[in-house]
Amino acid sequence: MANTKAYIITIGDELLIGQTIDTNSAWIAQKLNALGIDVTKRVAVGDEAQAITHALDAALTEADIVFITGGLGPTADDITKPLLCRYFDGKLVINEAVLQHVKDIFAKRNRPFLERNMKQAEVPDTCTVLFNPMGTAPGMLFEKDGRMVIAMPGVPFEMMAIMETAVLPMLQERIKSDAIVHKTTITVGEGESFIAEKILDIESALPEHIKLAYLPSLGTVKLRLTAKGANITSLNAEVLHWQDKLVTRLQDIVVAREDISFEEILGRLLREKQQTICLAESCTGGYISHLLTQVSGASNYYKGGVVSYLIEVKENLLQVAETDIVNHGAVSEAVAKQMATGALKLFGADYSLSITGILDKEPVKGEVAAPGTVWMAVSDGKQTVAKMFRFFHDRQRNKESAATMGMLLLWKFINGKLTA
Amino acid sequence: MANTKAYIITIGDELLIGQTIDTNSAWIAQKLNALGIDVTKRVAVGDEAQAITHALDAALTEADIVFITGGLGPTADDITKPLLCRYFDGKLVINEAVLQHVKDIFAKRNRPFLERNMKQAEVPDTCTVLFNPMGTAPGMLFEKDGRMVIAMPGVPFEMMAIMETAVLPMLQERIKSDAIVHKTTITVGEGESFIAEKILDIESALPEHIKLAYLPSLGTVKLRLTAKGANITSLNAEVLHWQDKLVTRLQDIVVAREDISFEEILGRLLREKQQTICLAESCTGGYISHLLTQVSGASNYYKGGVVSYLIEVKENLLQVAETDIVNHGAVSEAVAKQMATGALKLFGADYSLSITGILDKEPVKGEVAAPGTVWMAVSDGKQTVAKMFRFFHDRQRNKESAATMGMLLLWKFINGKLTA
Repeated sequence: MANTKAYIITIGDELLIGQTIDTNSAWIAQKLNALGIDVTKRVAVGDEAQAITHALDAALTEADIVFITGGLGPTADDITKPLLCRYFDGKLVINEAVLQHVKDIFAKRNRPFLERNMKQAEVPDTCTVLFNPMGTAPGMLFEKDGRMVIAMPGVPFEMMAIMETAVLPMLQERIKSDAIVHKTTITVGEGESFIAEKILDIESALPEHIKLAYLPSLGTVKLRLTAKGANITSLNAEVLHWQDKLVTRLQDIVVAREDISFEEILGRLLREKQQTICLAESCTGGYISHLLTQVSGASNYYKGGVVSYLIEVKENLLQVAETDIVNHGAVSEAVAKQMATGALKLFGADYSLSITGILDKEPVKGEVAAPGTVWMAVSDGKQTVAKMFRFFHDRQRNKESAATMGMLLLWKFINGKLTA
Repeated sequence: MANTKAYIITIGDELLIGQTIDTNSAWIAQKLNALGIDVTKRVAVGDEAQAITHALDAALTEADIVFITGGLGPTADDITKPLLCRYFDGKLVINEAVLQHVKDIFAKRNRPFLERNMKQAEVPDTCTVLFNPMGTAPGMLFEKDGRMVIAMPGVPFEMMAIMETAVLPMLQERIKSDAIVHKTTITVGEGESFIAEKILDIESALPEHIKLAYLPSLGTVKLRLTAKGANITSLNAEVLHWQDKLVTRLQDIVVAREDISFEEILGRLLREKQQTICLAESCTGGYISHLLTQVSGASNYYKGGVVSYLIEVKENLLQVAETDIVNHGAVSEAVAKQMATGALKLFGADYSLSITGILDKEPVKGEVAAPGTVWMAVSDGKQTVAKMFRFFHDRQRNKESAATMGMLLLWKFINGKLTA
């Protein structure tokens, strides 16, 4: 059975000049994949009639369903609605249900309903309206020669709401596709080539309908198995069988058998052990704390943290000795260790992680450590281990690297895999 | 003068199944824009020869320069290099400079150099090698009929390094394009339609070569003016003239005349006033602290913060009265205010911001406040003002909304625009 093919067209100059990063497409693709619909192409074009029309023409020759996001707002730069209206030989008419909804939203927000807002309630008479529970611009479904075009606003949470309440249930009912199964295995500490060499025989023995992809990023490589087939039950069993082979071969470096974040991996470990952690962050400025609390239920194991951006905070709150700061600098092994033990006392957790460093490329006045130097320490009260890292990119990337490495350090320490 | 047109093709199944969000395209687009090169289309395709070839065919009929990222790794799922080699009638040969570089990288990382890594040093003999200072896969430049195809690895920092050291300097020298000028004005507190109505006459008086775009997001609307023309000096003056008109008309709601983040807006205000802030975050879990420290030089005005994820931390560290937590709950006006004054004492800053709330959709056991309720307080020691907000989305979006609203609250308070 051939799978249903979908294209995603995103519209907006902000996507082409790099002002906005497109997160909608990834979200849509994930949801469609779960229904067995293949996204085979994504295209981004500007707010320009000819480019939109061309993209639509091309998409309709190849895809069964075309998703369009963006260009549906009430302002002059949004041209998608009249364009689609012409494209599908319709005329714009006021939709009473949408009009009432728009008026309700304005009333709720205490905003005057302006004449130009009437436009928000206009839809082509050749489309099926897809209700937008989160905003004023409705989604639209057009059908032609057995193909569908689904247009939605570009504001992420409005698009998501329309997809979840109207589009996905409709597709689930109408589309019968081959199942697609993905399974991801996460490894740490080894590179892509090393892993490829180690699993060479497994990879070449994979059947035709199962693909293996390597997704490397800082400190980790994800191995994704993807299988397509008619029977989801046997497909799941089959992919599991191959994942087992990979995991057995790579057991020393596998940290998860699912595509989850490192903060989730750490969270699961702590819940399993029923233990708690706390943080003392300097250069990462609360970023690790933010990541940990992205995980629902983090309050079961994360007690809290201090962001000690100034030296006086390190001294007063974390009880770092002033003499050590003077003698070794704020970015040093001695200070990192005292921050870790200070945080442990302050929060009364089982483990602590501390980070102090210079993330910028420029030297910091009065600091002996070179730019890019980061000291981290982990402690359980009995033992305190510190490690030094060097990061060579810009502030933001160094922050991300330091956060990942910090969580990895803590994970190794809790697993007894870290030695002083 | 017609501008140079560029297409971006990103390759990788991970982009189509939604496992990875494409940040490369936005970065490339920004850099090209600064050189006066228009990105007119972005296309994402999977690791599949036919799809890549089709995308390339289509791109070469319309674009002057085609950027390709991804698919250049050492593993079996990366098929772009041999494909480009065939497409441009070349054969793969070992490049000695690249080979030495790859070997150096393996030596530096203490990794064995494997036979399959030889492949990393192979390049089509019809391309110009673009050196990759950050990794093993080199970039490649192909030229045909006056058009360029530039292929780079998909790992963001490798792509960026190749662009900055090899591609951009080359383009700057070779491409003579019309200048493009963008100017963004940031407003807070009013919606897109309201603003459009207020500046209707200005917008319709804009000359043909200047476009206005509305970019709404939580609490803010950005107005972006874009102009194209031969003379960058007169273009800049012209856009500035129209921005002045917008700013004068909208003066009550304009917070910045540049496309900067809210944390930068706050940072500039504080540097100007030579004042400092500190934080006590509960539900936002360090996210506001992370945002503030994304700004270089934040240590000039940000003293530090406490992430008080557990009630005991609120009591011990921030001196919130246990009776208030018992009587009103941890998410309450009384607790928010005491967190703000507690943080102010702890860090000795001029202003503090505190946040306590429930970001999840489910009720929290033992907590009277409804899901989505967030209390925030700001204090300068003399006056402490608290406000309640309700957020109705998922945990992550609510966190972002709360962070933006918190910074906005602090900004208003410092500007004397917030009353109890």
